[in-house]
Amino acid sequence: MFILTFPYTKTCYMKSTDFAREKMPIVEARILEGYAPEEKKRLITALTDAIRFVVPATNEAITVLVSEYASENYARGGEHRSPAPALPDPSQIVLNYLAAMEERDLAAANAMLGEEFSMVFPAAQSMSSLNELIDWAKDRYRFVKKTYDNVEAFQSGDVAVVYTQGTLSGEWPDGTPFAGIRFIDRFEVSGGKIVKQDVWNDLAEVRANG
Amino acid sequence: MFILTFPYTKTCYMKSTDFAREKMPIVEARILEGYAPEEKKRLITALTDAIRFVVPATNEAITVLVSEYASENYARGGEHRSPAPALPDPSQIVLNYLAAMEERDLAAANAMLGEEFSMVFPAAQSMSSLNELIDWAKDRYRFVKKTYDNVEAFQSGDVAVVYTQGTLSGEWPDGTPFAGIRFIDRFEVSGGKIVKQDVWNDLAEVRANG
Amino acid sequence: MFILTFPYTKTCYMKSTDFAREKMPIVEARILEGYAPEEKKRLITALTDAIRFVVPATNEAITVLVSEYASENYARGGEHRSPAPALPDPSQIVLNYLAAMEERDLAAANAMLGEEFSMVFPAAQSMSSLNELIDWAKDRYRFVKKTYDNVEAFQSGDVAVVYTQGTLSGEWPDGTPFAGIRFIDRFEVSGGKIVKQDVWNDLAEVRANG
Amino acid sequence: MFILTFPYTKTCYMKSTDFAREKMPIVEARILEGYAPEEKKRLITALTDAIRFVVPATNEAITVLVSEYASENYARGGEHRSPAPALPDPSQIVLNYLAAMEERDLAAANAMLGEEFSMVFPAAQSMSSLNELIDWAKDRYRFVKKTYDNVEAFQSGDVAVVYTQGTLSGEWPDGTPFAGIRFIDRFEVSGGKIVKQDVWNDLAEVRANG
Amino acid sequence: MFILTFPYTKTCYMKSTDFAREKMPIVEARILEGYAPEEKKRLITALTDAIRFVVPATNEAITVLVSEYASENYARGGEHRSPAPALPDPSQIVLNYLAAMEERDLAAANAMLGEEFSMVFPAAQSMSSLNELIDWAKDRYRFVKKTYDNVEAFQSGDVAVVYTQGTLSGEWPDGTPFAGIRFIDRFEVSGGKIVKQDVWNDLAEVRANG
Amino acid sequence: MFILTFPYTKTCYMKSTDFAREKMPIVEARILEGYAPEEKKRLITALTDAIRFVVPATNEAITVLVSEYASENYARGGEHRSPAPALPDPSQIVLNYLAAMEERDLAAANAMLGEEFSMVFPAAQSMSSLNELIDWAKDRYRFVKKTYDNVEAFQSGDVAVVYTQGTLSGEWPDGTPFAGIRFIDRFEVSGGKIVKQDVWNDLAEVRANG
Repeated sequence: MFILTFPYTKTCYMKSTDFAREKMPIVEARILEGYAPEEKKRLITALTDAIRFVVPATNEAITVLVSEYASENYARGGEHRSPAPALPDPSQIVLNYLAAMEERDLAAANAMLGEEFSMVFPAAQSMSSLNELIDWAKDRYRFVKKTYDNVEAFQSGDVAVVYTQGTLSGEWPDGTPFAGIRFIDRFEVSGGKIVKQDVWNDLAEVRANG
Repeated sequence: MFILTFPYTKTCYMKSTDFAREKMPIVEARILEGYAPEEKKRLITALTDAIRFVVPATNEAITVLVSEYASENYARGGEHRSPAPALPDPSQIVLNYLAAMEERDLAAANAMLGEEFSMVFPAAQSMSSLNELIDWAKDRYRFVKKTYDNVEAFQSGDVAVVYTQGTLSGEWPDGTPFAGIRFIDRFEVSGGKIVKQDVWNDLAEVRANG
Repeated sequence: MFILTFPYTKTCYMKSTDFAREKMPIVEARILEGYAPEEKKRLITALTDAIRFVVPATNEAITVLVSEYASENYARGGEHRSPAPALPDPSQIVLNYLAAMEERDLAAANAMLGEEFSMVFPAAQSMSSLNELIDWAKDRYRFVKKTYDNVEAFQSGDVAVVYTQGTLSGEWPDGTPFAGIRFIDRFEVSGGKIVKQDVWNDLAEVRANG
Repeated sequence: MFILTFPYTKTCYMKSTDFAREKMPIVEARILEGYAPEEKKRLITALTDAIRFVVPATNEAITVLVSEYASENYARGGEHRSPAPALPDPSQIVLNYLAAMEERDLAAANAMLGEEFSMVFPAAQSMSSLNELIDWAKDRYRFVKKTYDNVEAFQSGDVAVVYTQGTLSGEWPDGTPFAGIRFIDRFEVSGGKIVKQDVWNDLAEVRANG
Repeated sequence: MFILTFPYTKTCYMKSTDFAREKMPIVEARILEGYAPEEKKRLITALTDAIRFVVPATNEAITVLVSEYASENYARGGEHRSPAPALPDPSQIVLNYLAAMEERDLAAANAMLGEEFSMVFPAAQSMSSLNELIDWAKDRYRFVKKTYDNVEAFQSGDVAVVYTQGTLSGEWPDGTPFAGIRFIDRFEVSGGKIVKQDVWNDLAEVRANG
Repeated sequence: MFILTFPYTKTCYMKSTDFAREKMPIVEARILEGYAPEEKKRLITALTDAIRFVVPATNEAITVLVSEYASENYARGGEHRSPAPALPDPSQIVLNYLAAMEERDLAAANAMLGEEFSMVFPAAQSMSSLNELIDWAKDRYRFVKKTYDNVEAFQSGDVAVVYTQGTLSGEWPDGTPFAGIRFIDRFEVSGGKIVKQDVWNDLAEVRANG
């Protein structure tokens, strides 16, 4: 299994460059079977990112394995466990909510909110209902649409956090159009429901300079 | 190993509540040895969060193991690999940078920026040097200090993303003080350097309403 | 992935209660595929008990995984191995044997005994056939029935050991009934056959006091 | 890597006896580091027995591995765990207790009993203190000594069960000696304390026949 | 789980022969699913041989496990990988090539050669086409047939190496028959094609002595 | 953890190139601790080659891990095993033997042979002692030296096989020098001793053509 090239020198047929400076972590997740491929893909992406958060490995150097166990092969405290459904993608929940809000479909949007929902908008009091929000917004713009440049989601302890970032377009109360105004929203999702929304944007900057 | 309680019925001495509805994933990371305990803790936290992003497990139900391999026991392509230092905590890099900026220690702050650094502030052009920023800011406030409510960091592909969130206090150009103004900053950190900063805040809102 | 709550102190944002005093062992058994769920459940229970014999873990803290390998994926000495049937539950063998004895079905009972079978009853010589036993017992009681309070089975090296414990009821030789008399039987099961039976009970005590 | 012996026949150079009928399970226990070699040996023996309880493998065919993890490499719910001491060998506890009883060292014996201790002796009421026992025994024998033929210990859910088996020797109340009388004791040990003792023996049989 | 035989000595009931001098390595290969049983058998044989090259274990002592992962459960750099076909058995390629040469089926033989094919025969220049070879051989023998005693194949870095060893029979240019003349051929196979052939034999020895 | 680039289309934010056509096997060898780094390197190289013999992976794509277990953490049949020394590198044994032969150090060469040693040289009877060989060779050349182009070693069942390949130089019986004559030797090594040597070369070819 080793090849010796001529000229042969007895004492030095081991390679001198054996030690490259690299990391190649392997992560294995053992879970109960029953997840859909796209759910496992979300898991794999999250685990890959988790490694790269600490280990200076190129993406290619990280291997993630998912080992699935049938209920009958997996016990805790001697008791088998049956599969529970995967958590929904929190990014999708948030994007669906924002789409419902743009279409003023308050019923649909409300259905995605947790009971303890609260939201904070620029220079506004904390609000807890969508009606409050619509009331507050009516002096600020006729309507607003979001174009997304970036959606980021990650888990932080008990909640999933989703950031949506992009630009706003719409009309001022007097009907003048605006566009390209930067915004960022931060959401917390828990148990599949949105429980917190924080909003920042440049509307006031633009209005002041406009 | 099984206990039979009286009255004994031959056909039903198996427990009926064997199948609880729960998930208990196990994650094992195999890495080269050489990381400090706090670096492994960061890794463990990130892996735990990664699982919870998809699997509806309580925190307690997730076990994370780190198996460390000596260089001589870990090869890729038949070649050993030597340990590279862990990536620094990106939150700490960002907080150090922000502290240096508050103290107007531009040399220290500059040393934390990558060559390709760019920043976007509310309603401003994209800037690439701290001097540009200071020039731009001088008409907006005399000085500003940050109080942090929340720092979030996670990996997203090739970069670590850090969000800092809290309130600003300081003085307007005319010397009037302000405080409690919401802000959020988003940073990208790559190779231990800050390469992107995006800033949103309510300064204009407050000024307009003030 | 970490959340910093206000007020922020740079040097102490790590939790102080990271080290709880607990054990959470994980056991993984790799076996050839082909076992029935109830056979794997017996295996899982035995492994869980094995851990708890040494490690002070609550039941909940122990995770047992069974990984099954197809013949073609499992080799010893470069040779594949094909599945052999699981050992029958020794408790069930013993209970079937005792039921056959109560019904005086000697043919059925004999079929469950190994060639090297021997038995020891209170103050009796060691016997090796059921006829011997029946002969010995006829001066002691007309018949006897067992009520089981407890059946315990475990492996001990080459044999499975089964303990059955409970109370005897029946009739003395003169036809007087008796009941509630404590007994314990110990069995050794090897290769699916009973090879040893040892019996203790309070019959003499009760007779003496009766 | 394969050797072809003459005469060579192209289509059949694979061995026909590749599939032997055997089982060769592998068990791996992952635990926190900190156990003594003899504690790990007890664990390995218990795991080996657990496998043999179900899988028809010869002893030689079972491999048990113990992987020990440093606290900093093992987390549950993102929190590290520190090692707890192994449970003491329950057989040793029981044998120490029985030795103390033989030496009438009630203080030492009492110290090994749990608060909820109870015991059942042949044809006696359930007792809960050693004084009760001594009082009950004084009409039955002057003293008794145990010779052990067999000690068996195993875990059964929350308790360790220990069986001691052998023969009694001593003196009847009238001073006549006796010896070779069969006994078996069953103990339950929980949290390092004896919580239950059940006793069967042939004393009454021998007395009746004597 | 432990058995104590009489006479019982408290301090030495642990076996003194616990430490036999042996090795029992376990090798686990994790691969994408999709290989045929005979391909996995080749892999298992090669891994078993690899261990025995270094570890002084009897064949029986080596366990090889193959764990197969579905594409959706195996990612590198966060990307799933789909199965590629196994490499063909290089011994079979070489034997097919030699059979085609014996039957003078140059088209079939040529199809098994890589573009960079070269061959070295005893005391001949390096050749790169089969026509060259036939031309060179015509003064040496009318025809030649191979009987194989041994075929060995193994991987050596980027190429598979195959040795075929046995005896030649045929006719000298004058029609005299010969037989039993030792030969050995060495082949390199890369990407399923033969890229190198080296030939040694005793033809000249026999001719000289004949 | 996912980034969405503008323009955003709700239904297609998953990458279309998720499935590359590649293999990335991972091999883990679990052995008793006690091997030297260079012994483990030989093992790792052999395992890497074993994988590449079947799986079309580039060298880089193969990860090999060696997990070492202390004696007290590794049991077979419930018994611990103590480490045995690694097998010596068979290539080194063969090269040492050939060097001793060149220096006519028969004592040293003999010490490296197993009792059952046999050798076959071109057109010679099988021989079993070095004296026989020297006697046979004296009519063929005054002396011969080997220059190595290639040394290959691998395990084949119970023996290690070593091939040495290169060219011979020396003097014919009449004192005329020769050089550059092709040779190949095949050795079998078992238990650290050479048990078989087979030799092929072009000496007769060259002599015939000379």
